[in-house]
Formats: sequence, C-alpha cells, structure tokens
Amino acid sequence: MTYIYDSIIVGGGVIGGSIAFHLARRGKKVLLLEKNVLAGESSRAAAGMLGAQAELESSSPLFPLAKKSREMFPNIAAALKELSGMDIELVNKGMFKVALNDEQAEELKRKVEIHRSHGEQADWLSAEDVKNHEPLLSHSVLGAMFLPKDGQVSAHRLSLAFFSAAAVLGAEVKEFAAVHTFLIEKDRVNGVRTNCGDYFSENVIVASGAWSAELLKDFGMVLDTYPVKGECFSVVTTRPLLEKTIFAKGCYLVPKAGGRTIVGATEHPHTFNKKVSVAGVFSLMDKARRIVPSIVDSELECTWAGIRPQTGDGLPYLGEHPKYRGLFIAAGHFRNGILLSPITGELAAQWADGQAVPELEPFRVDRSFPSFIT
Amino acid sequence: MTYIYDSIIVGGGVIGGSIAFHLARRGKKVLLLEKNVLAGESSRAAAGMLGAQAELESSSPLFPLAKKSREMFPNIAAALKELSGMDIELVNKGMFKVALNDEQAEELKRKVEIHRSHGEQADWLSAEDVKNHEPLLSHSVLGAMFLPKDGQVSAHRLSLAFFSAAAVLGAEVKEFAAVHTFLIEKDRVNGVRTNCGDYFSENVIVASGAWSAELLKDFGMVLDTYPVKGECFSVVTTRPLLEKTIFAKGCYLVPKAGGRTIVGATEHPHTFNKKVSVAGVFSLMDKARRIVPSIVDSELECTWAGIRPQTGDGLPYLGEHPKYRGLFIAAGHFRNGILLSPITGELAAQWADGQAVPELEPFRVDRSFPSFIT
Amino acid sequence: MTYIYDSIIVGGGVIGGSIAFHLARRGKKVLLLEKNVLAGESSRAAAGMLGAQAELESSSPLFPLAKKSREMFPNIAAALKELSGMDIELVNKGMFKVALNDEQAEELKRKVEIHRSHGEQADWLSAEDVKNHEPLLSHSVLGAMFLPKDGQVSAHRLSLAFFSAAAVLGAEVKEFAAVHTFLIEKDRVNGVRTNCGDYFSENVIVASGAWSAELLKDFGMVLDTYPVKGECFSVVTTRPLLEKTIFAKGCYLVPKAGGRTIVGATEHPHTFNKKVSVAGVFSLMDKARRIVPSIVDSELECTWAGIRPQTGDGLPYLGEHPKYRGLFIAAGHFRNGILLSPITGELAAQWADGQAVPELEPFRVDRSFPSFIT
Amino acid sequence: MTYIYDSIIVGGGVIGGSIAFHLARRGKKVLLLEKNVLAGESSRAAAGMLGAQAELESSSPLFPLAKKSREMFPNIAAALKELSGMDIELVNKGMFKVALNDEQAEELKRKVEIHRSHGEQADWLSAEDVKNHEPLLSHSVLGAMFLPKDGQVSAHRLSLAFFSAAAVLGAEVKEFAAVHTFLIEKDRVNGVRTNCGDYFSENVIVASGAWSAELLKDFGMVLDTYPVKGECFSVVTTRPLLEKTIFAKGCYLVPKAGGRTIVGATEHPHTFNKKVSVAGVFSLMDKARRIVPSIVDSELECTWAGIRPQTGDGLPYLGEHPKYRGLFIAAGHFRNGILLSPITGELAAQWADGQAVPELEPFRVDRSFPSFIT
Repeated sequence: MTYIYDSIIVGGGVIGGSIAFHLARRGKKVLLLEKNVLAGESSRAAAGMLGAQAELESSSPLFPLAKKSREMFPNIAAALKELSGMDIELVNKGMFKVALNDEQAEELKRKVEIHRSHGEQADWLSAEDVKNHEPLLSHSVLGAMFLPKDGQVSAHRLSLAFFSAAAVLGAEVKEFAAVHTFLIEKDRVNGVRTNCGDYFSENVIVASGAWSAELLKDFGMVLDTYPVKGECFSVVTTRPLLEKTIFAKGCYLVPKAGGRTIVGATEHPHTFNKKVSVAGVFSLMDKARRIVPSIVDSELECTWAGIRPQTGDGLPYLGEHPKYRGLFIAAGHFRNGILLSPITGELAAQWADGQAVPELEPFRVDRSFPSFIT
Repeated sequence: MTYIYDSIIVGGGVIGGSIAFHLARRGKKVLLLEKNVLAGESSRAAAGMLGAQAELESSSPLFPLAKKSREMFPNIAAALKELSGMDIELVNKGMFKVALNDEQAEELKRKVEIHRSHGEQADWLSAEDVKNHEPLLSHSVLGAMFLPKDGQVSAHRLSLAFFSAAAVLGAEVKEFAAVHTFLIEKDRVNGVRTNCGDYFSENVIVASGAWSAELLKDFGMVLDTYPVKGECFSVVTTRPLLEKTIFAKGCYLVPKAGGRTIVGATEHPHTFNKKVSVAGVFSLMDKARRIVPSIVDSELECTWAGIRPQTGDGLPYLGEHPKYRGLFIAAGHFRNGILLSPITGELAAQWADGQAVPELEPFRVDRSFPSFIT
Repeated sequence: MTYIYDSIIVGGGVIGGSIAFHLARRGKKVLLLEKNVLAGESSRAAAGMLGAQAELESSSPLFPLAKKSREMFPNIAAALKELSGMDIELVNKGMFKVALNDEQAEELKRKVEIHRSHGEQADWLSAEDVKNHEPLLSHSVLGAMFLPKDGQVSAHRLSLAFFSAAAVLGAEVKEFAAVHTFLIEKDRVNGVRTNCGDYFSENVIVASGAWSAELLKDFGMVLDTYPVKGECFSVVTTRPLLEKTIFAKGCYLVPKAGGRTIVGATEHPHTFNKKVSVAGVFSLMDKARRIVPSIVDSELECTWAGIRPQTGDGLPYLGEHPKYRGLFIAAGHFRNGILLSPITGELAAQWADGQAVPELEPFRVDRSFPSFIT
Repeated sequence: MTYIYDSIIVGGGVIGGSIAFHLARRGKKVLLLEKNVLAGESSRAAAGMLGAQAELESSSPLFPLAKKSREMFPNIAAALKELSGMDIELVNKGMFKVALNDEQAEELKRKVEIHRSHGEQADWLSAEDVKNHEPLLSHSVLGAMFLPKDGQVSAHRLSLAFFSAAAVLGAEVKEFAAVHTFLIEKDRVNGVRTNCGDYFSENVIVASGAWSAELLKDFGMVLDTYPVKGECFSVVTTRPLLEKTIFAKGCYLVPKAGGRTIVGATEHPHTFNKKVSVAGVFSLMDKARRIVPSIVDSELECTWAGIRPQTGDGLPYLGEHPKYRGLFIAAGHFRNGILLSPITGELAAQWADGQAVPELEPFRVDRSFPSFIT
C-alpha cells in the first residue's frame, strides 16, 4: 500500500502546527486534522511567555529542551514571516520575576544562584533598580530576579503562522475534522477514522493537548493528563504600562504590541469549562493592582479562559506508543506549550523522518508504568 | 407653507422613542433623527430599574411624574407587544433597598416612615424576612426597605420597541442623521439642518440626553447638563441568583430573564468616554460579593458603560424654549430615563398637540436663570 | 441502590431542555449534561418556524405529533414566561408558502387540496391577495398557500427558557460536562461517565441531536443520523419587511420582533463545520431579493450556521434502546426540532414516568433493522 | 504666554497619528484629541493598499507626494516596530490591475505606456503570465497591468502603531475629547475648546477626515469635502488565495497575513451611515467571484463599512487657514489616506516647525475660491 500522507497530525494547536510546519519544511506531505477551529483552545488563550528560566528549574529534565526551544525563536520568526506574512511579535527584552515579601525575595535570590551555578544568566535587582526599568511598579515590589533571555511572543499569531506557513509549503489542514479512532493493522497504526471519512498514513501524531487522553483511552493507554483552566484579562493604554514581562506569585503581566497588557492566570484543574468567573477576574485584578497600581485606571479590554494540558508528573508526553508503531504522542505541555513548540516540532519531525531522537527519552509515554492498562 | 412633518424629534434614545410612539399613536406624522444608532447610549446601557420610590423622595417634584409613569408600564408593555412583537420584560415583583450597617438601617427605616406618611407603600423587613425571600443574600444584610410597586424592564428592549412600534404606526426613523442646527424664522423654529439635508416642521423636540446642551448652545441657551458615565457588568447562572431587584449604597443587582443578573453602576461625572476601567469593574465586584457572596462563582458575561445626562439641580428639562416657539426640550433624566419615558412621551405629545400641560411647570427650561445667556 | 436522579438527560439543546422542563414539572429530580454550552448548536441557529403544515405532508407519520406540538405552544409560552421571565416570542399569524413559477403554483394548489381533505386549514391566495397582506413581495410571486395555524417562535429564547424554567423547578444543569460512556449493569443502564465524574440514574435520555450517533456507536447501535449544515443571515429594518413568514423553494424569510428578519437556509449534509461560506450567503441573498426586492436596502446584521440532525428516513428516533432498558433516545428532528420540542418533552416525560406511550411506535430506534449491529 | 503644547492635533485617524509621530520624533510636545476612539473610522476600515500608481495618474498633482510616501514605508515600518512593538505588515510584492474585457485591456495598456513615459515602472502581462503568478484567477481575466512598486500594509495596525509610537515618544493622546471650537486671538489660533476643557497652543492641526468641514464651518471656511461610505468583507482560507493585490473595476482583493483576504469596496457618497447593506455585500461577492471563482468556497469572516473623506476636486486639503495663522488643515485624502499618511505627517511636521513647504502649494485650502464665505 502506498500512502498519500507521510504524516497525519491530530490536533490544531500550536504543537500540531509546529510539527506540521517542520515536516512540511522537510518536504513531507502532511495532513493536519482539527476537530473544531485552529488554535481555538490554549494556543489562543496563552499570554505567550517564553519563560524557560522563569518557569523551570535549571535542573528540570525539561530545561534543556526549553532552552533550546527559546533559542530557536528568532529563526522561526523570520521563516514564518517570510512564508505567511505574519509577525509573531517576538520580544527579547527579558523578564522580571518580582518578590512581594521577604520570603519571596530570599527564594528568588537562591534561584539566581542556582541559575548561575548552571551557567545560565540571571541577576538579582534591588527594588530601586527594578523601578528604574519599570517606573510604574508598586512600592510592594522588593526586588526581582532578572532573566535577560526569557522573552515572549503573540501566542495566537505564532499558532496561526505555523498553520499558514505549513499550508503554503503544501500541508493540508482540515478544521471540523474529528478523529474518532485510530486504524490499526497488527501492531502498527495506518490511519485515522474521522467524521469526514478515513485517512491513511503509517505515521500518526497525536497533538491534542488536554483532549489527547480521551482519544487514546481505547488503545491500551491511560495518559495521565488532565485539563487546567486558566483565566486572563487584558487592558489597553496609549502609553505601555510595562516594558518587560513581570512575573509574580499567582500573577503575571505581559506587555504586548501597541499598548496592550495581558494579565494571567488563574488555575482551576479538572475542568474543560471555559467560562470566566467573577472570582477569577476579581482575584487577578486584585493581584495586578498590588504590582502595578495604575493598572486600575486602564481600559479593561477583554476577559477569557483557556484549558492547559497538565500531566501527573508535570512533564509532557513526547514519544511513540509502546504497543503501536507509528503512533506518536506530543501532549501535556501545560503552561509551556508556546515556549516548547519549536523544539517539539523539530524533534517530532526528526522522529517521523526515521531518526533516533535520544532527547525524547525522559518524556517517553510509558514512563509512568502503573497508569497503563495492559 | 405646509409641513410634511407634524413633529421632528432629535435623539434616538428611550425618551425620543417614547415621544415618537405617543405622537404616532395620536395620528401625527413624526420624523425622528438620530446621529448614530438607535438606543446606542444610556438607553442601551441602563439596568432598567423602575425605582420611583427607591430613587426619589416622595417630596421630590419629580415624584408625581415618576409614580404616574410607573403606573403606565403595564399598558405600554401590552401596546408595544401588540405593535412590535417585542416583550419589554416588565417585572413587577418589588425592590429591596438593603442596609449593610446600622446607620443605613436607621436611614431606611426613616424613609419607610416618610413614604407611608405620603400614602405610599413601603415596609421595613428584618434580615431574616429578607433572607426568606432572597436566600443568597449575605449575613451583612441587616434588613431592607421593601418597595412592592417598584419594578424593572429591559431597557434596551423597551427602547427598541418604542421605535419599532412608532415605525409601524407610520413614524419615519433615520439613523446617522446628525442635526447641525435649528432652522429659525423670527421667533419660531421651523426645521432642522442635518448632514442629510434640511427637514421642516413647526415642532421640533430635542431629546438628545447628555448631548442636548451642545446642540442648544448656539441658541441663546446654556442647558445646565453634564454627562455621568456609569459602568456595569452582568453575570449568568442557570438558576437565578435573585428574585427581586436589590438596591444598596453604590451598587444594585437586577435579576433579568433567563438567569442573567445586571450589577451596576459606577458614577464618573463630566466624561463622554465609554471605556470600562479595571477600577470600575473591580469596585462593583467587591460591592456585589458583599451583598450576594455566591455571585463570585457565576459566569462573567459582559462589561459595559453608558453616559447618563445629569443636570445641575437634578431635575430634567421638560419644556419649550423661552425664545423660540415650537422648540421643545426633553433631556436630563439622569438615572431615571427608563422610568420616566412613558410620562415624558405622553406629556410631550400633549404639548405638541397644542394642549396646556401644567405638570411640566417645575421642569421649565428657564428655571435656572443665571445659566441663560441673553 | 437508591438514585439521586430520577433521570439524566444527555444534551443541552431544545429537545433536552423540553424533556428536563416536562420532567421537572412532574416533580422529578433531573440532571441535564451538556458537553459545551446550552443551546449552542442548532437550537440557537434555528429560525424558529412552527411549520407543521409547511414542512410536513398531512399523511406523514410525524404530522399528528407536529400538529399536537404546535397546539401546545400557547400554554408552554405562558408557563415559561411565568417561571423564567422569558418571552419566547410566539407569533400566530400564519405562513405563506409562495410560488415563483407555474409549476410551483400547481404543486401548492394540490397541497392545499390535500391538507383540506385531511381536515386541515389551508387556502390558495392569488398574487394580488398575497400582496395585499405583504406589499413588499415581488411581482415574481404568483400566489401562495396560506397556512393560518403555522407560526413561529424565537428558537434561542425558547431553548434558554426551557433550561431556566427547569432550573427554577429544581433541575440541575451542567455545562461543559461531556458524557464519555454509559454505565451498564447487565441489560440496563444505570448512569453515565463524564469528564466531571460518574452520575447514576436508572433513566438516561440521549438528546444530543447530530452528536447522538457517535455516543451510541459503542452500544450495539448504529443510529442512521447525520449532520446537515444550514447557513442563515439576518437583516434589520425600522419598519418590518413582512408580517408573516414567507416560505419559498430553498429560502424562507421569518419576521422577528423589533424589525429583524431571518433568511434561511442552505443545506450541506455530512459536515459539522459551522463556518459561513461566501457561496452560502450569496445564494441566500440572491433568492431573498427575488422574493422581497427591497431587502437589498436593509442592514445586514449577522451571518451564522447551524448543524441539524437528519436521519436516513427523515423521521426522528424516539424510543428506548432495544438492548438496554432505561436508555431512551430522542434525536434526529432535522428542521423540526423547535416545532416538535413540546411534544417530545411531554412524551419522553411520560415514558420516564413509566407510562406506555403508543404514539412513539413509528419512531422506535430499531425500526431500520439493517443499521443495527447485533 | 508660554504654551505647554507645541502642537495640538484634532483627529485620531491615520493622518493625525502620522503627524503626531513625526512631530514627537522632532522632539515636539504634542497633544492629540480624538472625539471617539483612535482609528475608529476609515483608518480601521481601509484595506491598506499603497496604490500610488494603481490609484493615481502619473500626471496628477498628488502623484509626486504619493510616490514619495510609498518610498517612506520601509523606514516607517522599522521605526514603528522599534518603538511600539507592532508590525504594520508591509508587503512589497506589487499589484495587478486586471482587465475583464477588451476595453479595460486597452485602457490599461495605455496606462502602462503613460507610466513608462513618466519613468515609472509598469508592465502589461498577458492572461497566461498573470495566471502563472496567480493560478486562482478566473478565465475572465484578459491580462493585467503589473505595478511592482505598489504594495500594501495593515491599515489598522499602521494607525495604532503611529499613536503608540508617538505616545512612547512623549505625545499625549486623549480619546473621547471632542473639539467644539477653536480659540482665536485676533488673526491667529491659540487653542481649542473641548468637552474636557480648553487646551492651548499656537499650532492647531485639523486632521478630522470627513468631519473636518463641520468643525471649520464657523470659521469662515467651507471645505468642499463630503463623506463616501465604503463597504468591505473579508474571507479566511488556510492557504492564501492570492499573493499580490488584485485591482479591478469596482472591486479589489488584498491578501493579508495568515490567509485573510479583504474584498472592497462600494462607494456611497454623502452618508455617515456605517451600516452594511445586503446590496453592498451581494454586489462585492458577485464581482469577486468573477475574478477569483474559488472565493465562494472560502469562509466569510467579517463585513464592515468605513467613511472616506472625499473633496470636490479629488485632492486633499493640506495647508494653513487663509485667515487664521497657526491653524493647519490636513484632510480629504479619500481612498489614499493610508498611502499618503507618511508624507502628510512629514510635511505637516515641517510646517509646524516653521519651515517653508512648497510641496503643499497645490493643496492649499483656499484653492477653490467660490466655496469660501468671506
């Protein structure tokens, strides 16, 4: 049997988009299937922080990937702009992780030391130094860890640019195409059954975020993933409130192009409900005004929620199904899906191209043995 | 000269709509001109309370009109439903004005006595009695004045129904028709000049809310009106949070059809800016959760702002221009435009029909002499 | 085992809503589960025609139910208004099914005769007579069948009012609760497994429209249903374009409250894609302007699409699962879900209450034997 | 008297924004006043074509400015990106002006010759050559004039980036600030009166597009400008429909970033009404499908209208008021406001800085003598 598609990707979020882009770039014929609309879930909702150091310890098994992925962004931005005309609004001005009390200050100072001991850039700045950079910060900010290499992008534009660029390179992208089941022949996958018919390929990549577990549950596999709802709001001011991303306990503020600032995010595990609650917005506003008091005078633009895919041990699943050859899973990136999308796309493309990818070992899907049904 | 139009109405809010409806009902040929879209300002933003007693003292010169207007609603609702197919969602279940501290309780008890001494219905209910009616109220509610005759409607639907019913009865309604100036012949008006051309009538009624003063300033008249911005938000729950409207200091909660509750309203004088601020939403949420704690679990549906037309002495202007015969002003209803719309429409129609309308005496436009330029 | 819930309803559209309402009215404890938002699919998209005679032949097995359901609307409207405060905008002014060529005229005249021979009201009106009622109809209208008893409602408001009224009567309604599978004990259902946990009841009613087949496919049953996308648009005029609903080949125009007119609907089978195509809107506009030429001058308000659940033989499935007691299916109402919602709710409630319901016999789920996997 | 502001700009569209940006860049203290929201009118609605040669004859007095302005875009884009973080999505791939019949082909060939005779780049391409570049064009396209230097930007992003960059450089920008009148001392302006109070400067620049005439009418000046409404729609496809902008008689198609295509635009003179009509969308769809037939299968994303400021002789007004020194007018750019914004900003800034600006001579505001009231 000859297959029309080199790879079928299940899931139209930033991860699926990046895989499609990287495969199409290698000249592969790709079909991407999305059950609803492209970038309609967490890839649209995310604030777009590239917090390799802000979100992860240098010692985390995820850190090397995160660091490499962060470094890939300038080239990705240029390639996507060339192909899709879209600017992903990459900003490389660094991030402040601020302390609002002495305990937080001590913890951040320790983190600065740890980052440095691993050879990573990080600095402790006094309250005065931080305020020199960001004059609108409140007096409650006692200092900050400065991470010069952590940046940010427009999450939604990055996601759409991946799809658009992949399509320009020949990928087929179908929305409203829900995969019902995988087509299996003996011990290997050879396609998918969808509401629009069957599609065949020896290479099927599941990149369905928080929806991946549901899809795989009939195939001898209980992915230990669960959804975590996050609420955000945005404000608009003529003159930007901030220059750099501010990261605090339970609240971050990300300055966007043209005077927008995104404030996020609450965490409500185990729900796919995307409604915004009064409690969520109220608590975010309360935190934000303690960090940047003048935010209360700004215009409330929008409120929204997204569903992030968390896993039991906090690491994504990146690897082949233990029982079915050709079935690859790339899911569970939680709050780091935007940051990790370039490297995930690159490594999944290497795998689909038949290469050995040792970097994926820590993220094997059968790492948490007890959750597998045999 | 024969005139095509018996009356020209300037302003497409609830007041202009009611006047158009009442005139069309009398068989008059009416032209209504709106510079933007119909019911696009405070008539759309209002929560729709009919708080004749909640908002006004029985001794206010406005109270007799407010009371009469409140009584007109059932017939208005029936007539509008018949002509336009629209239900204005009139609810006649009464209103609770709640006390959150002892001082407020004392004040409300005094108001109960005053209402009663004027022959109006009003009752003081203990905290327990109020909670029997509204079990979700917080323990901070120490009691309430119950006003059984104060009700509410859908402000936006009422406004649209007035225009629609007037149109069915033959009124002409033009949107995006901005009146630049009045056409004057000697001492009487005989039309208006607009961006769409000139229209002629011996009877021109200005019902432009907070925008009226600007329009009249070149005609020897400084209406003492100013805009007051009010911010609101709405939540949705499957089971209604409340049965009756709850009115507290600086915050009201109005239960709407199908599980919606509107919470209002901030007051920012002297601005036409309709942006919603973080501060406004934050303070309303803070007040609302002190009255109905479980509101924090509900879905935030919408946030918005409207511009209410306030006057220097708090009374609307209802009467003929002192210098130009045929030029009538009906503006400055502040927070009571919805409530007062039926009676304003009726009285303006009587005036336009040539009748004497003694009820309008307290609202003459030249009552505040010093503000007139002569 | 004692069960908390008398019935669990799977699906938050107008059919599930009506069943919940009718069961709650009988004092039953009901849980309704919706995987996304209430009335988010065809119940929101529908134009709300109650076309018992316009859509169905008097000889159809569905006609008696449709007729009975149409008669239930005035009482339903009153009950829903009382409980939820919502007006469903029931209009009982009849419907014109218009002929645009001689062939259509002949066919409609035949239909008039057939309706009359079955004792139903129907009249043939000449072009002149029709234009006396609806002066904006074009000269292409050669005459019309008048169906005085066919009316219309607001589909979205009807749906929301069902949920709201059911909630007021004690029903629990959960959105974002996706049923993954049915819990079965021997030959009977005793609950559902959802993304929010398990819920137990001996009585589970599937009312998931076009999504029902997918849910039941693992339970020995291939429901012969499929989705049919329909695109619509709406216009707004100050004075209504039409008084009565106009029904033509491939196009209908439904006048709504306050000057809105809905124009529908295209038919694209076998897709869940709800995007609106240029082709769809263009063809509807082209048809509409041939019927009401002045519609081209009106304001385009909105465009949208919905997914209607069609079945192989055009009849809905209404009955118990042949293998699992307690599992009831109510799905496949295609273009008649709004019309049939009251009677479906009433009959499903009778069944859930243990009554025999002979009217359901023609709609048994195992009527189309070959599609069952045994 | 010392003035706080070097210049006050009246109007928050792309012209006012560019002037504010160019002045702020020169170190001037600028106040920009907008009566509603920034870029809320034609600057938001425009498709963003930079059609110096497509829209203008080489012999037009406007052509030298248009050409110079087109050349300024790359530098403007870089400066705005640096200051505001916003990418204005400048595309420099050229434009096809297509012929759909022999007459149009002849006319375009003549225009190619004229452009060339003025030393401008322009080529005639056969139908086959055009289809090699744009394979989705219909067989009705008989050939095209190719203008390699005409490009396009995102109109809305350009406008917002101007304001944002100006604000970063110290400009004050106020929305909802309506200028009522100019403050005059003898023969020179020294400020403006607004709904927020008076502001003083010896330099007031009116950049209020179609609203400018109204503002100036009380100052001895009848600007011969009028509004022209234009309706547009946009579609979205995964793979772009077109690479270059296509310009035809009565219809253009502009490919935007990420798979969006904008189709414009109707022309309805003498109305400020921004409602979208059925007729407008229908006629644009009809034209577009004759040029790119497969557009009918694409998703209809959005419909909208904008108000363009046209003048009696088709040229903008750029110059000082003949009676009041310090009062400068920059208005009436019709369909070329986006294209002309950089040069207009630059020249107005030169004027405000006291320089002589001979390029402005053809656009003097008193050029059309009879329309002045003296």
